[in-house]
Amino acid sequence: MPEDPRPALDLTRDAVQLTEDLVNIESVSGNEQQIADAVEAELRKLAHLEVRRFGNTVVARTDQGRDERVVVAGHLDTVPLNDNLPARRDETRLHGLGSCDMKGGVAVALRLAATMPRTNRDLTYLFYECEEVEAERNGLHLLSQSHPALLQADFAILMEPSGAVVEAGCQGTLRVDVTTRGRRAHSARSWTGVNAIHGAAEVLARLNAYEPRRPVIDGLEYHEGLNAVFVSGGVAGNVLPDACTVSVNYRYAPDLSEQEAYAHVREVFDGFEVEVGDSAPGAMPGLSVPAAAAFVEAVGGTVNPKFGWTDVARFSRLGIPAVNYGPGDPHLAHRQDELVPLEEIAVVEKRLRSWLEVSS
Amino acid sequence: MPEDPRPALDLTRDAVQLTEDLVNIESVSGNEQQIADAVEAELRKLAHLEVRRFGNTVVARTDQGRDERVVVAGHLDTVPLNDNLPARRDETRLHGLGSCDMKGGVAVALRLAATMPRTNRDLTYLFYECEEVEAERNGLHLLSQSHPALLQADFAILMEPSGAVVEAGCQGTLRVDVTTRGRRAHSARSWTGVNAIHGAAEVLARLNAYEPRRPVIDGLEYHEGLNAVFVSGGVAGNVLPDACTVSVNYRYAPDLSEQEAYAHVREVFDGFEVEVGDSAPGAMPGLSVPAAAAFVEAVGGTVNPKFGWTDVARFSRLGIPAVNYGPGDPHLAHRQDELVPLEEIAVVEKRLRSWLEVSS
Repeated sequence: MPEDPRPALDLTRDAVQLTEDLVNIESVSGNEQQIADAVEAELRKLAHLEVRRFGNTVVARTDQGRDERVVVAGHLDTVPLNDNLPARRDETRLHGLGSCDMKGGVAVALRLAATMPRTNRDLTYLFYECEEVEAERNGLHLLSQSHPALLQADFAILMEPSGAVVEAGCQGTLRVDVTTRGRRAHSARSWTGVNAIHGAAEVLARLNAYEPRRPVIDGLEYHEGLNAVFVSGGVAGNVLPDACTVSVNYRYAPDLSEQEAYAHVREVFDGFEVEVGDSAPGAMPGLSVPAAAAFVEAVGGTVNPKFGWTDVARFSRLGIPAVNYGPGDPHLAHRQDELVPLEEIAVVEKRLRSWLEVSS
Repeated sequence: MPEDPRPALDLTRDAVQLTEDLVNIESVSGNEQQIADAVEAELRKLAHLEVRRFGNTVVARTDQGRDERVVVAGHLDTVPLNDNLPARRDETRLHGLGSCDMKGGVAVALRLAATMPRTNRDLTYLFYECEEVEAERNGLHLLSQSHPALLQADFAILMEPSGAVVEAGCQGTLRVDVTTRGRRAHSARSWTGVNAIHGAAEVLARLNAYEPRRPVIDGLEYHEGLNAVFVSGGVAGNVLPDACTVSVNYRYAPDLSEQEAYAHVREVFDGFEVEVGDSAPGAMPGLSVPAAAAFVEAVGGTVNPKFGWTDVARFSRLGIPAVNYGPGDPHLAHRQDELVPLEEIAVVEKRLRSWLEVSS
């Protein structure tokens, strides 16, 4: 009989090796079947876990009757290939697509699932699909719609790269289009028209004058930003344009709701036409919740605010406090040269292990 | 034998009927063969003209040994069809593609060519192709390259629509791209980057503060303009853009050369990256030339400055003073609802006829 061509995962090997094996199973968003099959097959061998599969999302739960339940989650997909497979390892780092975002974290979660049949908290391991693409395909989002009870927990750890330091909370993001209007005219007779691009000078001036807030929430300082991300206008090379649109992205601290963020942006651009585009609320750090506080203490006490938007905001919307905690520099995510330091994989595994260990 | 399906032109009929017949020969730029064939065929029947054909451009010259030679020119092509053929006539106006720009003027020129074997000045009639498209295809441009001697004259009348009033001179036009640079950064950490769109605020502020000149040249007041015609910038919805380009169109009075116009724009945008795009010089009104002064007096004495760019600038570059003078409101050119007042066709023909008449 021919060998099964599918690379198997061996959960008994160390987390670095496991990360390398995971990286070598290409799993660009939409193509997660092979990696999900491998993860599911290995988890099903473990008697202490109840495993379920939804699309290419795999859920595995312990049921030890503990007072507390914690979700440990990681997405299986990566951004598109960029001539950065297979994995390559040097003395201190593993290179390759998904090494940083976030197969190092997935490897640690799989190791915990495989090697800790007994823990001081019940665990819900979640390995999900399509995090890197539109929300409608996101495995965590889909599961929260179809089986919300499966996600119920006191706390969630999203193993996104965070440099092996807890990142709490998550800024909200709002995009609006600010449009100025004019009246077309031939540019040879420009005094007969009104130039909409010239009208946008005031929009840009307000952006330049804007003083972003830096509020402190649960001891973490957030840093907001209000930025033009696109500008467009123009009809023809000899015509005064009758419209100009500046797309503005507001990144706001999690003490504001989506509605408050929108009201603020409208106020900044008072007098202009403002249309709301994408919007996703932030997530409060939630560090006052006992499970979260205990976790932070167990993994070293340092917490940074999270500026970018991650699925911690989804957990937050489900009423579950969540933090990012995983190996890898988040700034390297989505880059062709992404990598993960081997040391960070080891540190994250060790700290989670000691936090979950049943005291003797 | 079947009838020739090609509509014939009858130069003995009045100029309004001739305009209608010309409009009904569709001649969108690049498709002028049929109209050029018809024009050439009729002109070749006239013994007092020497006719030559170049592509779809037809030249017909008298040779009476006069001291002065005048070019009377019109283009045969039109902008694209816009559901505005065939021609339609009401009590006072003729409607349809090319009626205004510029088959009314072409009809008058053909009438003069056909009915005035003797004139007080020698005439070079020019009916040319591809005026509405890029300069490289323009029949006047091509002829000025291949047979410049054929165009030699003391004065030129370009029968572009000018409301039956002489329009003299022509503003120059220059397009430049003004680019601001920044440094990309994730919009969630905007303080680590530099936003190039925000940097364009100053470019727009200078445009808003700009005071256009209104110089008086040969008694005509020109009105300049400096206008953004395009703006673009942006990388992604969550990225601070590293470049933003404002395309600016400078329409300048003909007392400036192309070089002076460019130097002026560079000065306005001092400190910014400025790249020159399209450029076409203006044309001085040239009304002090005796032939031009006599013409203006003969047709009523009123002269307006020309703001838009026309082929008078090409004649000017050949050293031939030129004016626009033809039936039709220039603001209706290129519009679906273009039309020409019948009265203006008649007035223009009558005035040119009396200017060219051999005094008894």
